[in-house]
Parts: sequence; structure tokens; C-alpha cells
Amino acid sequence: MKIAILGYGNLAKGVESAVAQNDDIELKYVFTRRDPSTVSVRTSGVTVKHVDDIAKYKDEIDVLVLCGGSATDLPEMTPKYAGDFNVIDSFDTHAKIPEHFANVDKAANESGHIALISCGWDPGMFSVMRLLGNAILPEGSDYTFWGKGVSQGHSDAVRRIDGVKNAKQYTIPVASALESVRKGENPELTTRQKHTRECFVVAKEGADKAKIEQEIKTMPNYFADYDTTVHFISEEEFDRDHQGIPHGGFVFRSGVTGFDKEHSHVVEYSLKLDSNPEFTASVLLAYARAIHKLRGEGQTGCRTVFDIAPRYLVAATDEDIRAHML
Amino acid sequence: MKIAILGYGNLAKGVESAVAQNDDIELKYVFTRRDPSTVSVRTSGVTVKHVDDIAKYKDEIDVLVLCGGSATDLPEMTPKYAGDFNVIDSFDTHAKIPEHFANVDKAANESGHIALISCGWDPGMFSVMRLLGNAILPEGSDYTFWGKGVSQGHSDAVRRIDGVKNAKQYTIPVASALESVRKGENPELTTRQKHTRECFVVAKEGADKAKIEQEIKTMPNYFADYDTTVHFISEEEFDRDHQGIPHGGFVFRSGVTGFDKEHSHVVEYSLKLDSNPEFTASVLLAYARAIHKLRGEGQTGCRTVFDIAPRYLVAATDEDIRAHML
Repeated sequence: MKIAILGYGNLAKGVESAVAQNDDIELKYVFTRRDPSTVSVRTSGVTVKHVDDIAKYKDEIDVLVLCGGSATDLPEMTPKYAGDFNVIDSFDTHAKIPEHFANVDKAANESGHIALISCGWDPGMFSVMRLLGNAILPEGSDYTFWGKGVSQGHSDAVRRIDGVKNAKQYTIPVASALESVRKGENPELTTRQKHTRECFVVAKEGADKAKIEQEIKTMPNYFADYDTTVHFISEEEFDRDHQGIPHGGFVFRSGVTGFDKEHSHVVEYSLKLDSNPEFTASVLLAYARAIHKLRGEGQTGCRTVFDIAPRYLVAATDEDIRAHML
Repeated sequence: MKIAILGYGNLAKGVESAVAQNDDIELKYVFTRRDPSTVSVRTSGVTVKHVDDIAKYKDEIDVLVLCGGSATDLPEMTPKYAGDFNVIDSFDTHAKIPEHFANVDKAANESGHIALISCGWDPGMFSVMRLLGNAILPEGSDYTFWGKGVSQGHSDAVRRIDGVKNAKQYTIPVASALESVRKGENPELTTRQKHTRECFVVAKEGADKAKIEQEIKTMPNYFADYDTTVHFISEEEFDRDHQGIPHGGFVFRSGVTGFDKEHSHVVEYSLKLDSNPEFTASVLLAYARAIHKLRGEGQTGCRTVFDIAPRYLVAATDEDIRAHML
């Protein structure tokens, strides 16, 4: 199976490194909006091409992995490239998924390709866990917690504040809330009771730190509804301790069974990830394999993780997985 | 969707109570090997029939849920009833799954029905988690822990010992082993390092307790490879504290990503179940819904949880789950 990547940021590099861990997948091209001569990839044999020329390579590629952003890139990219390729993306603006799905489904059906949108871990694996939990325990409650991990959007928001040189924001689930859910207590939790936010900020020389802290803590949508801690640190500390992109989270389904609903059950799925983009990329690659197989069965149109049976995600045969993993 | 249950033990009663939680599913019949007049079911409108007459009802039932045992019942039952019904079972003898699959697949294909075997939580949800973990993190280690929970087989084994009036055995994962896996330390664990066993025994009057304890602790296959604790308790204590059938467990996938495999990830799925048979039954019912839908698409033959896309497990529409669960 031959893939190509569009883009060459953190997620794309994660896909590239994941290909090296999957013998049945080969990376042929990286397409970029930059001058290709300025982009150097790690894998030998991979050619960097300008995205304007992408259509020339459509017969060489089984799945094109779209590594653009959800805000402006993917809503245009995914339907567009579904015209020439089987495509997969990590579109994660939950509220706009139905619209994005409709656009991609139309484009893929018209061109006779297959697409899978909103892949990764949330949306993605967490979505699968929410669905499985609801299917098995129809009477119950859902809980999703994120972290401990870096929120790129919140880090960006802090960096835009006047006087901030650099910043990283960590989202942290509240331990007592996690424990209560884990015990099956079915708590009602406000936004503030579920997560705290912690910011590590490098201030510019002479900046008013009290003012920066105040601005962070009162920022609507991003911080105002949370208990936020702000730490001012030196550039050296920042470079030493905050280079990683860890993340993770928890999905719970807590529900009851029995004629008198007398039995409680708690299902918990959690991720602890050293590298958010590399894990996301690894999920993308498994689902890229799945849609390649489905296209081989003649399927076209848009799919999500809900449409993919587990067997399609692995290179192993059905006999093998039944004998060794069931 | 109309279902029937074959058998009326704990698992079957779990299916019956789960039906009451799923509006789209109706229970029509319970089939029994006993005299039907001696079996009284909880749900009004459900008729109990003798299993010898089951074929008469084949056109009234969408899926027959087989609630027999894996040792002797299901290897015969599932292929047999796949001749007249779409069937689902919870066959859990892992080593014999390929043989059972082949038998059921042949029968179901010949009769034009669909079947799903080895459903529940292990095999079942745990199998799905093992497959997903391997698909996403191809370089890594798998860990499955069971408990804390009641092992029926081990409890039976203790009850067969001379001088034992009643007994219950709990399988308990070793906390330090769980912690090590959770930290991503990738420990190599022996059988003894993964689980301990705890027995609560009611001895017959005048029985030699020391001898019973010795016999338990040295029993090959069941206890000899584990650290086992034996508690002798009164019948009153037994009836008060050990009537439930709780269970649960943990599936971990621990793996690495990155060009230099420099990033570690830990995926953890866990179940804490007040009632093992009711949770298992709830899983069976969701997958019964799935095979009913698949039969509606014209599919026949044997399936496992690996073959079922999440969307088939719920009554909700695709639009609905994409909008609310993705």
C-alpha cells in the first residue's frame, strides 16, 4: 500500500515515522505548499513535490493523508482532494463534522473514491469508546476528560497576549472528579470541576507579569470558566522542560443493568501519550489501511471511525487475529 | 427486532433484563431443555417453550441468543441452530475458537443465516481492545489482567474438594504489576506476578481445614502457579458477603513511536462490573442488533467482534451518532 502526505508539520512527521513501523505501507511523496527544495524529509526514497502538481501522481497513491488544520485547511482540502485520491483527515471541529462529512461524501462518491474524516483519538478512538459504551450500557452517563496534556489552541492564545514571549498550556483533569466517576458515583460536573489549566509563561523583559496573569485568567472561552495557574519561568526552563507535546485523556461509560437496575458498571478507556501528534498519526495510518481495503471491495464515499470494523485496521489475516487476539 | 433465548441461567436472565433497556428489541421466547412449565420468566408476554420445538418458531425470530456453556453446549448448539436461525454465542474457550468458527461458518453459510461467536467481554470487548492497540501501536506489548472478580471455574474446583460445603474464588490483579504496566515500564510478568487468588470457603462440620487449604493451594492448573489466600467463613458470612458475581479487568497496550522510538504511549481499557453475566448479556444484545442489521444487508456466515463496525451496535442513525458521539 502506497501513501502520500499533504503537509509536513508535526502530524505529517508522525505519519512518516509511523510508516517505518508498518511493513505493509510505503510512503511515496510528501506534498507541500512551500518550495519543495526547502523541505527535507527523514525517509530516504521519499520525494517532496509541490502541492500544485499533486494530480500528476494520483495513480501512484492508494491513500493521501491530509495533515492540514481543521480551522481553514481541511474544510477545503478534504473534499477537493477526494476528487483524485482516497483521503483521510483528522478534522476535529466537532460541531462542524456533519457539514464536513456531507461535503466529503459528495465529492468522494462523485469521483469514485473513499474518504475517512475526523480520525485520531478525539475525535477517533474516544468516539469509538463513547459509541461502544452507549451500545452496551444504554442507561448510563458519559464522561470525557482530557489531559494531562498540551493544548495547542490555549498555548497560542496565551502567546498572543502582550508581553508574552513564549507559553505552553497544560489541560489537567481534576483527580477527585476522575475518582468519583471511577467509583460509579455518576457526579454532575461543571466545566470548572472537570479540568484545571496550567500555564508556563516566558515574559518579555520589563513586561507586567501581574497584568499578563490577570489577562490569562479572565480570557473568555479559553480560561474564564476554569481554575488556572500561571507560572512565569525563564527561557532556559521553558526550553528544558516544555518541549514535548504530551497529551491523553479518559472516556468513561458508567451505567446500570438488572431488572431493578441494581448493578453498576464502569467502563474506562484512557490514553497516556508522550507525543500527541505521533499517536494521532499512528491512528490515521491504521485507518488509512482500512479505507484502502474497503476501496478494494468497491466502496466509495465518506466514512468515519464508526464505519470501520476492527479487522480492517491490521495487516494480519482474519484467521490470524481470530487465533491470537480474540 | 425480535429475539429468543436458549437457556435460562444467569446469562439468559441478563439478556432478558437487558432487553427491557433497549426499546428496539423484543424478547419473544425462552427455550429450555427443562419442562417449560417449571420455568417462570420475569417479562410478561414472553413464552417458555421446550427446545425440542424450537424449529417451529424459526420464522418469528430475528436472532437466537445461545446461553449455553462453552465446554459442551455451544460447540454443538451454535452450528446446529445456525441451521434455522441467526445466532449469537459467548463461546470462550480461546484455544478452540478457530475450530468453532469453522463449524459455525459452514452451517450458517449453508442455511443462509448469520452468526456471531465468542461475544462478551473476554473474548469480546477485550479482544477489540487488543486488536485496536496492536493496529495503532504495532511496536509494543499487550497485557490483560482479570479481576477483581469471581471465577466460576475456580469456585467449582474448590467446591469439589472433600469437606467443602460452599466456596467462592476471587481473581485479583496484582496492584504493583498494574502500576508498572501503567507507567509504561513494559515489565515481563510471570503468572504469579500478575494475579493472586483468594478463596472464601464454608467447611463442612468436622472437616480438616488445614488439609482443605493445602489441597486448594497445591491444585495444579487452578492454584499451584498463584499465591492463594484461603479464608474459612461461616455459612451466614458466605450468604451475606459473597452472593454477587462481580468481575472486571484491564487490557493495556504499551508501545513506542517516533523516528528513534523515543516516545512511549500507554492505552488502558478497564471494566469494573457488579454483575459479570448482566454485562456480558448487554454486550451480546448489542452484537445481536449488529448481526440482525448485517443479515438485512444480505450477509451470511460466521462473524466475530472483529468483523463488526461500531455503527451496527446502536439503534441510533448514522447522522445522529456522527453529530453527537464523534
